[in-house]
Amino acid sequence: MKYFLFFLIIAHGSVFAQPPGKPPAEKFILAIHGGAGSIKKGQMSPETEKLYAAALEQALVAGYTILKNGGSALNAVEAAVKIMEDNPLFNAGKGAVFNNEGVIELDAAVMNGKTLEAGAVTGVTTIKNPVSAARAVMEKTAHVMLAGKGAEKFAAGAGLELVDPAYFFTETRWKNLQKAKEADSVERNQSPEIKSSEGKIGTVGAVALDRSGNLAAATSTGGMSNKKPGRVGDAPVIGAGTYANNSTCAISCTGWGEFYIRLVLAKTISDMMEFGKMSLEQAAGEMVLKRLPALGGDGGLVAIDVNGHCTMPFNTAGMFRGFIKADGKAVVKMYKDGD
Amino acid sequence: MKYFLFFLIIAHGSVFAQPPGKPPAEKFILAIHGGAGSIKKGQMSPETEKLYAAALEQALVAGYTILKNGGSALNAVEAAVKIMEDNPLFNAGKGAVFNNEGVIELDAAVMNGKTLEAGAVTGVTTIKNPVSAARAVMEKTAHVMLAGKGAEKFAAGAGLELVDPAYFFTETRWKNLQKAKEADSVERNQSPEIKSSEGKIGTVGAVALDRSGNLAAATSTGGMSNKKPGRVGDAPVIGAGTYANNSTCAISCTGWGEFYIRLVLAKTISDMMEFGKMSLEQAAGEMVLKRLPALGGDGGLVAIDVNGHCTMPFNTAGMFRGFIKADGKAVVKMYKDGD
Repeated sequence: MKYFLFFLIIAHGSVFAQPPGKPPAEKFILAIHGGAGSIKKGQMSPETEKLYAAALEQALVAGYTILKNGGSALNAVEAAVKIMEDNPLFNAGKGAVFNNEGVIELDAAVMNGKTLEAGAVTGVTTIKNPVSAARAVMEKTAHVMLAGKGAEKFAAGAGLELVDPAYFFTETRWKNLQKAKEADSVERNQSPEIKSSEGKIGTVGAVALDRSGNLAAATSTGGMSNKKPGRVGDAPVIGAGTYANNSTCAISCTGWGEFYIRLVLAKTISDMMEFGKMSLEQAAGEMVLKRLPALGGDGGLVAIDVNGHCTMPFNTAGMFRGFIKADGKAVVKMYKDGD
Repeated sequence: MKYFLFFLIIAHGSVFAQPPGKPPAEKFILAIHGGAGSIKKGQMSPETEKLYAAALEQALVAGYTILKNGGSALNAVEAAVKIMEDNPLFNAGKGAVFNNEGVIELDAAVMNGKTLEAGAVTGVTTIKNPVSAARAVMEKTAHVMLAGKGAEKFAAGAGLELVDPAYFFTETRWKNLQKAKEADSVERNQSPEIKSSEGKIGTVGAVALDRSGNLAAATSTGGMSNKKPGRVGDAPVIGAGTYANNSTCAISCTGWGEFYIRLVLAKTISDMMEFGKMSLEQAAGEMVLKRLPALGGDGGLVAIDVNGHCTMPFNTAGMFRGFIKADGKAVVKMYKDGD
């Protein structure tokens, strides 16, 4: 018995501390985001603030329940993202933004850190939960990424829930589009570039480490308000907005997607850890707080490494975010100062 | 005069050897590929072999002429790729493969290593030269990637040449589709995975270093024969099949795209150089000869680093490939033994 206790002490936090047959370490964790952007303190009504906090907590608890019961990181991130897709507060699924022709085109991706398997859909308009379609692409096809009508046809065949495009409509996002159109038309007289992402971004995503030590990531979005039809953002691009690898980390990004694609942002963080021996926090900070703004982009991300460390950097005014660990205490934040 | 000669000798190969006002170093280089796959010696007729060699040489000379005259790496890779898109021998533009509904859906991307600007199109069916559409996305929109009808609408507005989808049709590829359908239908009874890429892959691409020291990459493809409609391969995914960065290298890939996406293959090579201090050859070899086959994938790539070093690894039977340096001598190879 003395030796057994000693073993427990030296092996604290490792899988060896578990009795045989039981799930391993208690360091499982889920982190989520509900979009980065111009989220400033005092801008939202206390009621809206409460709605966001409740929605984030609901997503965290859904994923936590899965992880606590020994479920996979993949199941946890899908469950958390689905809840946010179904909630019109977020720019994903119901409540997503419109493209410049007034159509809601949705993107999503998932990645399994254990196998490096990945799935993604882009430009879908009738799939209720794009994150589940992305997972179906991963599990039921020989492909990683399907676009548009092809993705919808596959989703129908795979038994996913389809909806009329009107299901995704919200008055708030429609007004956002009109505002974005006005702003862009001014900017476009000078240059083809959109000069600011102000009020136009926001995405949902989740990353998790499960009790078996597996990582997963998922991201879902309507993209950027007033985007061109057919625009593919970073969320469905493996390595840009979504990435998971058991040997390094799991990452889900939110922000001005074009910059994340050009920087191949998520995979670069993983590579900084693998080849540059940086910590997750160092690597994510270097990308989000230095290289991303240096190129002119903005946004943030949530990330978890194989040891359960979590980092949630962003360079915008705020980012809807939160995490939950084995203690079951959901921590939700929105603003820069950490509140 | 004695001192001038001495200066030339010590500065050999560096920009300092150039008289002021003239273009810098003579180390400009262009490398191209016309697809990797089951290209075995003795399989092609000598006539077909000659046709491929001539086509590759034509693409090399077109890019060389631009580079020699001080043109940009971006112009050189676009010109080389366009020639291969227009040639029915290659799986890009005219002569591309069919998806499993008998439609030719084309993908392409370009990236500018100087600015990290990038452009891509996917799933286009009416744009004669997808590589030029990718470049137009990069230069004339705020986006990096446009898919399907949205990309085609943009291309029409940007003045790119549109064609009837029948333009891309070739009898050879139609027969390939029937063969692929038979093979896949057998495999599909066991698993949703396609078990082999045999006879189904092939893509074109180019990388260049110009006299100003700038790198660029471009890739264009019809993807994989018998793919699902809407399937996005690695070619248009920045960091997977196409990547360029003046601080490391330029890369264009060809092969079983899904594995390149999951490995974020091209960017990983760049990151191995940046964070792991590996040489281009080491990094490209590690990915193409070790990690890619370890995951079950196959294919190859062409890559050039900022010092003009070139590597062209592949793990298939053969790869249509070639390079041309300042001496203007086009070197073309097809098989594993280097011929």
